Amino acid sequence: MTPARQVVRRILAGRAGQAQTGAAAYAPANIALVKYWGKRNEELNLPVTGSLSISLGPLGSHVELARAPEPADAIWLNGRRLAADSSFAQRAGAYLDLFRPEADFHFELKARNTVPTAAGFASSASGFASLAKALDGLFGWNLSLRELSILARLGSGSATRSLADGFVEWHAGTAADGMDSFAERLETDWPALRVGAVVLCAEEKPVGSRAGMKRSVETCEFYRAWPGRVAQDLADLKAAIARKDFPMLGTVAEGNALAMHALMAATRPPIVYALPETVAAMRTVWAARENGLPLWFTMDAGPNVKLLFEAKDETGVREFFPGVEVVAPFG
Amino acid sequence: MTPARQVVRRILAGRAGQAQTGAAAYAPANIALVKYWGKRNEELNLPVTGSLSISLGPLGSHVELARAPEPADAIWLNGRRLAADSSFAQRAGAYLDLFRPEADFHFELKARNTVPTAAGFASSASGFASLAKALDGLFGWNLSLRELSILARLGSGSATRSLADGFVEWHAGTAADGMDSFAERLETDWPALRVGAVVLCAEEKPVGSRAGMKRSVETCEFYRAWPGRVAQDLADLKAAIARKDFPMLGTVAEGNALAMHALMAATRPPIVYALPETVAAMRTVWAARENGLPLWFTMDAGPNVKLLFEAKDETGVREFFPGVEVVAPFG
Repeated sequence: MTPARQVVRRILAGRAGQAQTGAAAYAPANIALVKYWGKRNEELNLPVTGSLSISLGPLGSHVELARAPEPADAIWLNGRRLAADSSFAQRAGAYLDLFRPEADFHFELKARNTVPTAAGFASSASGFASLAKALDGLFGWNLSLRELSILARLGSGSATRSLADGFVEWHAGTAADGMDSFAERLETDWPALRVGAVVLCAEEKPVGSRAGMKRSVETCEFYRAWPGRVAQDLADLKAAIARKDFPMLGTVAEGNALAMHALMAATRPPIVYALPETVAAMRTVWAARENGLPLWFTMDAGPNVKLLFEAKDETGVREFFPGVEVVAPFG
Repeated sequence: MTPARQVVRRILAGRAGQAQTGAAAYAPANIALVKYWGKRNEELNLPVTGSLSISLGPLGSHVELARAPEPADAIWLNGRRLAADSSFAQRAGAYLDLFRPEADFHFELKARNTVPTAAGFASSASGFASLAKALDGLFGWNLSLRELSILARLGSGSATRSLADGFVEWHAGTAADGMDSFAERLETDWPALRVGAVVLCAEEKPVGSRAGMKRSVETCEFYRAWPGRVAQDLADLKAAIARKDFPMLGTVAEGNALAMHALMAATRPPIVYALPETVAAMRTVWAARENGLPLWFTMDAGPNVKLLFEAKDETGVREFFPGVEVVAPFG
């Protein structure tokens, strides 16, 4: 039995419920303020460090799950049935393999993203998180957030953080089987917080996160210092959230994103996601800030920039970024 | 006595010659292929790591030095007499203080740069190296390259590498007084090597190298891993030079430059020299390389990009960078 199946078996021990007719679930996308870059276990998506994200409320993935009437999985994305050999269907099918009660149990999965993937938000986090919730609903397991986050992690690392709204911390854990590598919601709500998506490029990135972080762990000398950096940034970010100190939150998030991109650039061969437009957007943020606007940015493993600001400054932000798509993570 | 004066006294012990009427000297600028970023001693400009550069032949600084007829230093730069309170005159005067035979000995210094500072080549390296040579000529000390490189270092770290043509290695050394932190010329000549300057921005940089590297040493977690990175890159670069393996030279130089800029970006607060045009130029280099052109780049602590290629590819390089200024380091 593979390590991932063992994890599933452990979590579902004594819970083998009956498959309901069907189940629906939703999970939000999330954007990390302290980033996840590098795994200690590839199969279980166990991270080297903890990370902390903000969930994106209405931007996420809806999933409907049922037992398929046919002798094969039927995978739908945004209203279209996918070919069995499409990469999405393959990845979803491999994940569903972990949960089939019998070998001939097949799923009908209908996923619909409200997260605009063209805006540079990843949909795999919300996708696997909503799928874990839908499985829980379909089989009536009634799992905890902690357990669901572990199951979601088996699909995609960042999905671990997409089971709850608000600020979510993913604990790295140390156990070989990853049972202590799960997510927790922070208590603080911050209704004024805003995330803005600045879309610079909707093309697929040349190096995927999975391959990129593996290369960093294996070849980047700076990687040894990354866990220490993350530990400091996590402590600072949690203090900023507890105090609702927005400049501190922005400073930590922006610095941590730049440090992650620095890790990538110092990898062999180098991984550079920035486009000329990325640097232009960064510099616009800095110019706005010098101008007195409390505006910071973060960036994931791609060229797009996400703005961080408070509701009171939305008008000011739109002067610098007229096309920004604004999300209110706390509704 | 300050540590710098002690170093000067030690080197000049038993050599106190007579001032000649005047002396002239020239030193080339240099561009590091494995970078110098971070000091272990601020006053003596002692580096944390070694570095390795290529001297830029005809691009450099000419200096004429004589005893001044007036009771004050007279400092000229590119044909114009500088005000005593200009930053150049102040820095030159402070350096000359180390060498005055008597308190009322004043210098007439005429510096002329053939290195186009607007092309993003630093002139402080060639400036202090030529000044050290001119002092040697004026006082008739007859110092070795090694001794001259130590004296030049007291003016500017990178000046250590500007005393010789060709490939020059600056040994970091470990001694507190820096007597083992000097430069040596590598034996290999590589006449086909070319350096191209792509000028993107001639403005002064927002954070100077001196302040920037200090901040990195003090605040950047990744800095602890920088010496290991440099040691590996130095070994690889010397192997590439010995074998005249140009793709290897290019790969090491480009990767090391990106790693230095990564260090800067992970500094608190972050130091980012790149402009949108910098990323555009980097991506043009990568596109050219994917197109089969053996072209790499390096970048110093600024936004400008320097191209590395071989003579046979100059026409090809000019197709991608029509405005490039090409230097033949080996004449």
